[in-house]
Amino acid sequence: MNLIKQENYIANTWVSQGNGSFLEVFDKYTAAQIAKIPMATEAQMEQAIVAAQSAFIELKSWSAGKKSEKLWALRNKIEEHQEALAQLIVKEAGKPISYARNEVSRCITTVETAATEAVRFTGEMVPLDFGPGEGKTAFTKRFPVGPVACITPFNFPLNLLLHKIAPAIAVGCSTVVKPAPQAPLCTFALAMFMDEIGFPIGTMSALVCDIPVAEKLVKDSRMAMLSFTGSEKVGWYLKSIVGRKKVTLELGGNAAVLIDADADLKEVAKKVAVGAYIYAGQTCISTQRIFVVDAVFNEFKTLLTAEVENLKTGNPEDDAVLVGPVIDKGHVKRIEEWVNAAVENGAEVLTGGKVASEANNTFMPTLLTNTKNSMLVSCAEIFGPVAIIEPVADFKAGIEAINDSDFGLQAGVYTNSFENVKAAHENIEAGGIMINNIPGFRIDSMPYGGIKGSGLGREGIKYAMEDMTEPRLMVY
Amino acid sequence: MNLIKQENYIANTWVSQGNGSFLEVFDKYTAAQIAKIPMATEAQMEQAIVAAQSAFIELKSWSAGKKSEKLWALRNKIEEHQEALAQLIVKEAGKPISYARNEVSRCITTVETAATEAVRFTGEMVPLDFGPGEGKTAFTKRFPVGPVACITPFNFPLNLLLHKIAPAIAVGCSTVVKPAPQAPLCTFALAMFMDEIGFPIGTMSALVCDIPVAEKLVKDSRMAMLSFTGSEKVGWYLKSIVGRKKVTLELGGNAAVLIDADADLKEVAKKVAVGAYIYAGQTCISTQRIFVVDAVFNEFKTLLTAEVENLKTGNPEDDAVLVGPVIDKGHVKRIEEWVNAAVENGAEVLTGGKVASEANNTFMPTLLTNTKNSMLVSCAEIFGPVAIIEPVADFKAGIEAINDSDFGLQAGVYTNSFENVKAAHENIEAGGIMINNIPGFRIDSMPYGGIKGSGLGREGIKYAMEDMTEPRLMVY
Amino acid sequence: MNLIKQENYIANTWVSQGNGSFLEVFDKYTAAQIAKIPMATEAQMEQAIVAAQSAFIELKSWSAGKKSEKLWALRNKIEEHQEALAQLIVKEAGKPISYARNEVSRCITTVETAATEAVRFTGEMVPLDFGPGEGKTAFTKRFPVGPVACITPFNFPLNLLLHKIAPAIAVGCSTVVKPAPQAPLCTFALAMFMDEIGFPIGTMSALVCDIPVAEKLVKDSRMAMLSFTGSEKVGWYLKSIVGRKKVTLELGGNAAVLIDADADLKEVAKKVAVGAYIYAGQTCISTQRIFVVDAVFNEFKTLLTAEVENLKTGNPEDDAVLVGPVIDKGHVKRIEEWVNAAVENGAEVLTGGKVASEANNTFMPTLLTNTKNSMLVSCAEIFGPVAIIEPVADFKAGIEAINDSDFGLQAGVYTNSFENVKAAHENIEAGGIMINNIPGFRIDSMPYGGIKGSGLGREGIKYAMEDMTEPRLMVY
Amino acid sequence: MNLIKQENYIANTWVSQGNGSFLEVFDKYTAAQIAKIPMATEAQMEQAIVAAQSAFIELKSWSAGKKSEKLWALRNKIEEHQEALAQLIVKEAGKPISYARNEVSRCITTVETAATEAVRFTGEMVPLDFGPGEGKTAFTKRFPVGPVACITPFNFPLNLLLHKIAPAIAVGCSTVVKPAPQAPLCTFALAMFMDEIGFPIGTMSALVCDIPVAEKLVKDSRMAMLSFTGSEKVGWYLKSIVGRKKVTLELGGNAAVLIDADADLKEVAKKVAVGAYIYAGQTCISTQRIFVVDAVFNEFKTLLTAEVENLKTGNPEDDAVLVGPVIDKGHVKRIEEWVNAAVENGAEVLTGGKVASEANNTFMPTLLTNTKNSMLVSCAEIFGPVAIIEPVADFKAGIEAINDSDFGLQAGVYTNSFENVKAAHENIEAGGIMINNIPGFRIDSMPYGGIKGSGLGREGIKYAMEDMTEPRLMVY
Repeated sequence: MNLIKQENYIANTWVSQGNGSFLEVFDKYTAAQIAKIPMATEAQMEQAIVAAQSAFIELKSWSAGKKSEKLWALRNKIEEHQEALAQLIVKEAGKPISYARNEVSRCITTVETAATEAVRFTGEMVPLDFGPGEGKTAFTKRFPVGPVACITPFNFPLNLLLHKIAPAIAVGCSTVVKPAPQAPLCTFALAMFMDEIGFPIGTMSALVCDIPVAEKLVKDSRMAMLSFTGSEKVGWYLKSIVGRKKVTLELGGNAAVLIDADADLKEVAKKVAVGAYIYAGQTCISTQRIFVVDAVFNEFKTLLTAEVENLKTGNPEDDAVLVGPVIDKGHVKRIEEWVNAAVENGAEVLTGGKVASEANNTFMPTLLTNTKNSMLVSCAEIFGPVAIIEPVADFKAGIEAINDSDFGLQAGVYTNSFENVKAAHENIEAGGIMINNIPGFRIDSMPYGGIKGSGLGREGIKYAMEDMTEPRLMVY
Repeated sequence: MNLIKQENYIANTWVSQGNGSFLEVFDKYTAAQIAKIPMATEAQMEQAIVAAQSAFIELKSWSAGKKSEKLWALRNKIEEHQEALAQLIVKEAGKPISYARNEVSRCITTVETAATEAVRFTGEMVPLDFGPGEGKTAFTKRFPVGPVACITPFNFPLNLLLHKIAPAIAVGCSTVVKPAPQAPLCTFALAMFMDEIGFPIGTMSALVCDIPVAEKLVKDSRMAMLSFTGSEKVGWYLKSIVGRKKVTLELGGNAAVLIDADADLKEVAKKVAVGAYIYAGQTCISTQRIFVVDAVFNEFKTLLTAEVENLKTGNPEDDAVLVGPVIDKGHVKRIEEWVNAAVENGAEVLTGGKVASEANNTFMPTLLTNTKNSMLVSCAEIFGPVAIIEPVADFKAGIEAINDSDFGLQAGVYTNSFENVKAAHENIEAGGIMINNIPGFRIDSMPYGGIKGSGLGREGIKYAMEDMTEPRLMVY
Repeated sequence: MNLIKQENYIANTWVSQGNGSFLEVFDKYTAAQIAKIPMATEAQMEQAIVAAQSAFIELKSWSAGKKSEKLWALRNKIEEHQEALAQLIVKEAGKPISYARNEVSRCITTVETAATEAVRFTGEMVPLDFGPGEGKTAFTKRFPVGPVACITPFNFPLNLLLHKIAPAIAVGCSTVVKPAPQAPLCTFALAMFMDEIGFPIGTMSALVCDIPVAEKLVKDSRMAMLSFTGSEKVGWYLKSIVGRKKVTLELGGNAAVLIDADADLKEVAKKVAVGAYIYAGQTCISTQRIFVVDAVFNEFKTLLTAEVENLKTGNPEDDAVLVGPVIDKGHVKRIEEWVNAAVENGAEVLTGGKVASEANNTFMPTLLTNTKNSMLVSCAEIFGPVAIIEPVADFKAGIEAINDSDFGLQAGVYTNSFENVKAAHENIEAGGIMINNIPGFRIDSMPYGGIKGSGLGREGIKYAMEDMTEPRLMVY
Repeated sequence: MNLIKQENYIANTWVSQGNGSFLEVFDKYTAAQIAKIPMATEAQMEQAIVAAQSAFIELKSWSAGKKSEKLWALRNKIEEHQEALAQLIVKEAGKPISYARNEVSRCITTVETAATEAVRFTGEMVPLDFGPGEGKTAFTKRFPVGPVACITPFNFPLNLLLHKIAPAIAVGCSTVVKPAPQAPLCTFALAMFMDEIGFPIGTMSALVCDIPVAEKLVKDSRMAMLSFTGSEKVGWYLKSIVGRKKVTLELGGNAAVLIDADADLKEVAKKVAVGAYIYAGQTCISTQRIFVVDAVFNEFKTLLTAEVENLKTGNPEDDAVLVGPVIDKGHVKRIEEWVNAAVENGAEVLTGGKVASEANNTFMPTLLTNTKNSMLVSCAEIFGPVAIIEPVADFKAGIEAINDSDFGLQAGVYTNSFENVKAAHENIEAGGIMINNIPGFRIDSMPYGGIKGSGLGREGIKYAMEDMTEPRLMVY
């Protein structure tokens, strides 16, 4: 089975005609073109929406058991094509192969979790046997909201798609997907699997398209919800144009880690180096800001710099490589500019700081210090292999430094002080606080999502299933 | 204690200066002016927002016990002024006294529920002792989102305010309230109680203001959430301008009841008459559409018409009156126009159909039949003492008739067929299905809210508390 | 793989030496001997208990993920040997093949449910941020109680064993199993699977033994819990000798069904015939008492009698047979005596009433009427292919008739009256009320267990997991 | 209102006739007789049981609202008589007045919690829309088990009674109470309150009686449950004679605290002194065993000894007294013997060690070291003002020392090491682990109960309500 499909999937049909222009997809390391997909027309988007509507009518009548079975089938398809999918991710997303394999393995978990949550999902009993409710019984069942518009990012082209599709199937929502233009191929591979398994026509359409067509999807009142994972700017803008839709936004951040004096510095340096630079820092919870209490700052800085310099950068097909290419030239340039601007304003480069290979779009793993929070490398999401390391007076000051950000997705702290652990949970403004771990820790079933600029709502299968449904109370 | 306060309450200060113009509040039946309140300036709104921000810092550090104690104090204040509050509601909202007393009694329940939920509110354990989570423990605690902008309606000027304020206090959110211009006095009465009890400066500011100033509140990024109860049109518009805020919208509907052949028609006619006309139909879940299965349509129509003609219309201060004034002349006129338009297009007036007293803004309890769903009396929210009654072929057709609406708040069905009960829960598109009851049934702690055009999110203390907080995961 | 193993499995070792005497296991239809297993000595039981203790130390440290993986492996083993297991059940339990296949299919579900619950099992957050708890955080995690003594019945020799073993593994409890002497072979087959998969020594020992040795197991203070499924008499007796142990008892009953006048009598007769006679009535929730409202009693009686007469009795290996042998001669004789005693006291035999084949231990499907509640066929658990059918004045009287029993496991009612559905749930004294279904309905994950004489506690994987663990609160 | 009532309360009637002998109740400090109550006859116990049965029929039909209202009334009665109740507890239980006031204040919370839980108590939705459950809906409601036999201890004569009565009322169970012979008067005071409020006849009977009559209560099959708080020996014995009843046992323990090197020793010494000696150590979670890591053992021993010597012993009516009398001469003698035996076997008395006043039954606050775990002062529950302090090599050894006990109710640890906090929760075998707190911490709504010899089941209102009810599943 060739996993590369160069057509849109609309109402369960593969469509090779588009608006005349094409989206070219490149190998992110070699820059070789690997696919060319027609850009969908507005009429095709309309068709997808109409199909999603009619699929919804059927899907919502499916039993939980049937939805679960279909998800098991999907899980098995993914397992069957595990290695090919990993290779595809390497190519279209430039993700190092070991990490790509990890993504596919997580995909299996994601879909399996949805398959097993589907048969557990239910409502709640509502007590109201008092006052005017005396003698009454009440409970809710949860019903799917309707078709869900899904916009997905390039960095986990399969797993972050599945974090929308799997819960949607689990509750009986149809979907229309607009994948990231940089890495749409996994979406179409998934569509091939679903096509083979057999779903009602329109269950999941997938289209690449230009912005106006995408906005049609976002605005259309027949779509009941928007589930978006991507950039902060686009996410919040879309929220303002969705109309009556429910909205889940999984945006980015400038995740921080805080290291206390009693941490095992050598061990932590190893983990933080990975957390900051793996996949060239292109994950939403990549460690971007490293705060270290004064007492051990210099020691940790030295240890970390050494670890960063040990990281292998280069061809993502190489098993030993952790840092592959940046997604495209535009981003390489942006990263370079941000770093240069920081340096010009006084930041010190501890290691890296430059483009590694123009041809391959790689940027050297870069560690900066002496930064200010006004610099983009600190206050904005760098989404590249760049981190800053700064001292803080103490743990409390470290928490304040973490909170001095427009974002709040996840944070990590390394400490053995129970007082500090408690303070971290009480005071760090983020969706998740990882104790003795990097901010990048994620289990696919855990509630995941940000506050402040980092988004709205939670994913994590069960949580997405809740968002994609409404409780319907019955009182008798 | 004089409950009528004619000043805005900003940052715990009563302010008599405004933008120069005044909001006049009238007795809804006699049209006598009962208060005159300065319209707040933009600067005053700014002040309220700033105060809400600083109050939040303090409130969020309060223990659940302290928040609960304050809510108990508030509950006791309301109980203490129970009758005076009911009288105030009669005057400013034109609500019949017996129903106004019922509202205040519900207010006590609402606040008591918040007081007892405050000490029960907590997060959840998150299982992740597997895969990369092996050996780890995880749980969430819930933290308040921040200051909440509250926009409240005239029809339950105290209880629907408390459905925002009480959960806000319970979780530690400060609030800025813009009450309905027709009936803002209960809001200020509540502010007086809170002032006496003692809360951090800015906990709840309350201002009457014009639209631009209200929009400042809605748009301001320092407010973390908008909780709106009011009209469909305004609600959905505000959603589009809130920026990053979370939004809860409790809008209206054209609630329907469906009567099966085996219902106790005489009993049901009595209940439906009340459900459709009490308080001149000015509740979000007032029965507007009455569907009756063919077999008993004529019989029920006759019974219901008789019941409607028995309803006492007039002075809301009269204990026996169920149908008082419509909130203002504009609405009387609108209702008259909708009824006339329906009649012109073929609707038949079974009873009523006309203004009862121009001076008192009363409209006769009106029952129409032979309507079409394109008529405003059917497809739009009439929010007046007007209902339609139509036959349906059978229960299934009745469900379809109910669903043929842009709204979906609550619905009622009368049947003793278990198959029909199940079908009602499975298929009626609404937030709540009341079996053998009118759609207007509500217990203040139950999950309450609509789908489709009727809104977003659920109120009902615990549910509002969830909306006003975010889970923060800790993993160790 | 030969699934018949004729040795005890003690501390992960197959032991062919016993106390000198042997348990002979027969084909229940042909009476051919199919196995001969040494009766374990007291010293061997001691060895099993000691091993269970030390296995527990290791098991309780396993991650949820590891426990889940082992359960998946077990599930797969069962699936792999699905048909052979079904054949074994036919032989040792005399269960008709179609129903035996159904049992094995349920086994797969049971273990899969445990595998997926294992990774979901967790504690709860405990709110106590008030009074002396101000500022504190509290939550529970659940810890396994220790080794569990399992005593299992013959009628579902694999699935009811797995209802103990699977949740035990899921939470980390070791077990010592004493299977039913009539049908112990599935237990040893399971032990073979577990042996292949690999578990700590002592995780599940399985021994056939005489009563004193079994009582040693029940009484031993190192075993933390007794999970017993079997007869009422033995169950309640064991409860009195367990010492400090927790106890779950799944005993029997004389399950009733109540048929209202509006039921689809023809359909219901078909279902009730199966519910009463399948597997010769040898399930805990076999329909034994059939109550029919007066208005349709005669009609239903006629329909049901015809259905019963259509049931195929005979060789359980025959796909079309629903009623196979009774478990042993003693029970055939007991059933015959109970029926005869009933007839002597005025009961009327509508069909059956006699031994079908002495050689094959089959008893004719027997339907009695005109019985009194003092007769053993009514008030005691017949555990054979015998049911009574009696008229009741109305639905309410039917509920009273159902409740006039020492037992309360499950009940079924057929009605389309919603009032009657509500009354059934409110008033029938049983663990489960099945609406428009026979009492024998069971999904392996649902809470299952009786009240009154029918037992104590609930099984159903998650519920058994709760019983096999204790919450441990942490407050900080 | 004179709170001292010298009659049994049987089926809502005060009965002054008994079996001819009387229970004399003494002031525990002055030894003055304060009441004389007839010992109930077996016939009277029968009457109480019969009444409990018929009360149950009525109670179980009460709405949650009604049960809640009655509990509010009860709460208010207790508040009204707050000080008098505290004085009564001082007298009959010998509890220092400040601590007695604390008990009554907790009683108010206990009943208020039951009142607010009553209207929240409900069942759960059960997902089974798969396999043979496809299309089905299922949920449970919880129904009261029936009359509950309550046996209560002397040490919290009102609050531990209410921990049974309040949840019983909340769910609709009637009760028959046998209070502790040393301190039965609070039980009768409560009966007076309930009598005034008005409950169905037999809702709560209270009788003092000899052992055979008490055993009748425990054994009687009409009582559905035994809820016992008291001594280990009696509790486990009763479990063996209850027949089919459910059983909750809240027994005692030899609660331990573990102090790590980084604790604030001075502060901890103060808290531990109170935790070990308040009310002469007569609480189930009194600190009896104090383990201190070697590094700070001597320092802490010195600090604690000084704190213990500062505790005021004497008349419980004195506000400053923390250590009053032991409950009776027999216990004083027993405590003396245990201490002497320890000393004879090598234990060293750091302070105390002797009877303080024979006349007043006071024993000096006693701190021992150099004990062995085989000594009764260590391995048994001393229930007196005696504690042991011993060094442990490190935190891990401390956990082992805590676990080297037949008991497991609650434990406390003082540490700021997060690793140690985690280890404490994972490894200490007890129902509750208090971090940086004494084992005696209890909030009345938290799950409370022990493992190992310390009991079975959990109290804490909601948890007791669960135990006093059974889920009844409905599937349709």
